[in-house]
Amino acid sequence: MEDAAHMRAALALAGRGLGNTWPNPAVGCVIVAADGAVVGRGWTQPGGRPHAETEALRRAGHAARGATAYVTLEPCCHWGRTPPCTDAMIAAGVARVVVAMRDPDPRVDGEGFSRLRAAGIAVEEGLLAADAAALNAGFLKRLRQGLPLVTLKLATTLDGRIATASKQSRWITGPEARRAAHGLRARHDAILVGSGTVLDDDPDLTCRLPGGVPIPAPRVVADARLRIPPSARLVRTARQVPTLVATLAGHPDSALAPLREAGVEVLEMPAGPEGLAMRGILLALAARGITRVLAEGGSGIAASLLREGLVDRLAWFHAPMVIGGDGVPAAYALDPSGPLSELAEAPKFRRVAHRTIGADILTEFEREAG
Amino acid sequence: MEDAAHMRAALALAGRGLGNTWPNPAVGCVIVAADGAVVGRGWTQPGGRPHAETEALRRAGHAARGATAYVTLEPCCHWGRTPPCTDAMIAAGVARVVVAMRDPDPRVDGEGFSRLRAAGIAVEEGLLAADAAALNAGFLKRLRQGLPLVTLKLATTLDGRIATASKQSRWITGPEARRAAHGLRARHDAILVGSGTVLDDDPDLTCRLPGGVPIPAPRVVADARLRIPPSARLVRTARQVPTLVATLAGHPDSALAPLREAGVEVLEMPAGPEGLAMRGILLALAARGITRVLAEGGSGIAASLLREGLVDRLAWFHAPMVIGGDGVPAAYALDPSGPLSELAEAPKFRRVAHRTIGADILTEFEREAG
Repeated sequence: MEDAAHMRAALALAGRGLGNTWPNPAVGCVIVAADGAVVGRGWTQPGGRPHAETEALRRAGHAARGATAYVTLEPCCHWGRTPPCTDAMIAAGVARVVVAMRDPDPRVDGEGFSRLRAAGIAVEEGLLAADAAALNAGFLKRLRQGLPLVTLKLATTLDGRIATASKQSRWITGPEARRAAHGLRARHDAILVGSGTVLDDDPDLTCRLPGGVPIPAPRVVADARLRIPPSARLVRTARQVPTLVATLAGHPDSALAPLREAGVEVLEMPAGPEGLAMRGILLALAARGITRVLAEGGSGIAASLLREGLVDRLAWFHAPMVIGGDGVPAAYALDPSGPLSELAEAPKFRRVAHRTIGADILTEFEREAG
Repeated sequence: MEDAAHMRAALALAGRGLGNTWPNPAVGCVIVAADGAVVGRGWTQPGGRPHAETEALRRAGHAARGATAYVTLEPCCHWGRTPPCTDAMIAAGVARVVVAMRDPDPRVDGEGFSRLRAAGIAVEEGLLAADAAALNAGFLKRLRQGLPLVTLKLATTLDGRIATASKQSRWITGPEARRAAHGLRARHDAILVGSGTVLDDDPDLTCRLPGGVPIPAPRVVADARLRIPPSARLVRTARQVPTLVATLAGHPDSALAPLREAGVEVLEMPAGPEGLAMRGILLALAARGITRVLAEGGSGIAASLLREGLVDRLAWFHAPMVIGGDGVPAAYALDPSGPLSELAEAPKFRRVAHRTIGADILTEFEREAG
């Protein structure tokens, strides 16, 4: 019971790192002395280091001797950009380590536990493991599948429209929902949109929350036809915030040069049977270390991600209005080869959270297993 | 405080009558003796009589003498199908009457209060008046505007689709949501659908809740082109449950005869600029005594009602799936003369209730004033 409360605190700390620790996992650590006093707390710092354990041990100082450390992920035992956390714990004299889940990174994967046990430290594994796995979903998916976790965020009317026929979309949702959407950006490593969204809205896709974010999330535009103009806000600010444009290979260098000169990274992707495959873009992002992608539409990106089975989570804002059948749909037809006719074929989701937010409603889903 | 609690109880009792008291209002009454004991409770019975007060007085018997009666609507003072409730209260020796709101029916409209006061009864008016007005919204709208209250009920995917491209809609929502939809039917006087819904789904639109309903709600089909076949379930069961078909005037008698012979009432409506106007149908229903209409779609009916500004309440079930842009929309284009381009033109609603229901979400709205 006591153990679980400390682990929950460690998980909450870990959450602070989401969106700014990639390619590292967002880890939390709480150190509790034998008398029950919390003597150190830490979480993975922006950029992925120092690690959570290092931070917590630094704050605990001598009080770490004989203490219990609660860590959301198995401590690392290899030299990366920082020394191994296992060694730091051993050196600090920690007596017991409670870990939520094993780190499947092949450089760790149980070896951290072994190292601690070999030093005489009591190790327990698996406390709130499911919560830790949910928190680390992006890190784990990248390790296991070479793909980032994808959250599809949509802000629609009740009838699922993201804009009027003339592309007016500002604002369907209210200020509270838009603030929450900025919070979503802060907890993701990269933001993905289609070129239509850039042409229609000219967004900057940055996180404008009070206090800002430590690591601005790269902005990625899926743009098969290379329609993004050099005058787009994303291009003009590419030297302040990383901007990637994923396009089909074969555009002349002269078309790519203005983007590259503005500081945009151009990803040239091979054409798949349906043109620019989302999967290819996501693989390329994961290869760059991205573990969590927030896809913000428009209708083409949403349909492609759903069609390719790449949407892990949905964050759906419904605003209390109706646009009607000539509005822009949340997602275009999912099956370009013919209509989706059977309901059984429709992508289904499991509701995990649900709340009103100003005049709007936010419902969060995970992909239905199977 | 005590008064408000009793009035809340009376309002809850009144709610039991919704859907089966038309053209009468659904009223509730609680009679409380001087010692605080509740001695009688009543609500308007199916078909509109006996009235709530009569029921409560009957149960109270001699205990009504010197008691306080809490009534959700001003007691009637005219002979209708029943003797005046004011006279019954006076005869029973009620000492005090607390009423939530005045009955704007010109045959009452304050006269009930006068009659009670003239008999020496203390009368208080206005306790929980807003709640009573919300409960009586259908009754009041019919009196004031000659129109019924309209609740538009929709069951859609997250992206606002009511069916796949091949019209498959069974089932988008789960069993819990479908049960709640039957509850909505029970609380409305009539059910309205378009002929497309009849052709696609062949529904029976009855309320299949355990215990059934005392007064089956008439089913109304808006069918400008008279497409409903005599083989439709609604036609075949028209002698068990009233069925009305509203169509444009001018169809030959030979086309109407099979419907009429099956027991369907045909409403021949004049053609408006956009064909069959929903407003005309609703006026005709109100003229027949209907105070609360549940519109269940499809896309054409939803668009027409929204376009004509006739949707008072929305009951929107969102199921956790996405069909995509080739699915059937919740509502067709709202403006047939050209696209709705400005967001400001989109009908807006105010959220009044919100809950998860099985895997689905039900959000209820009222029309945004102005």
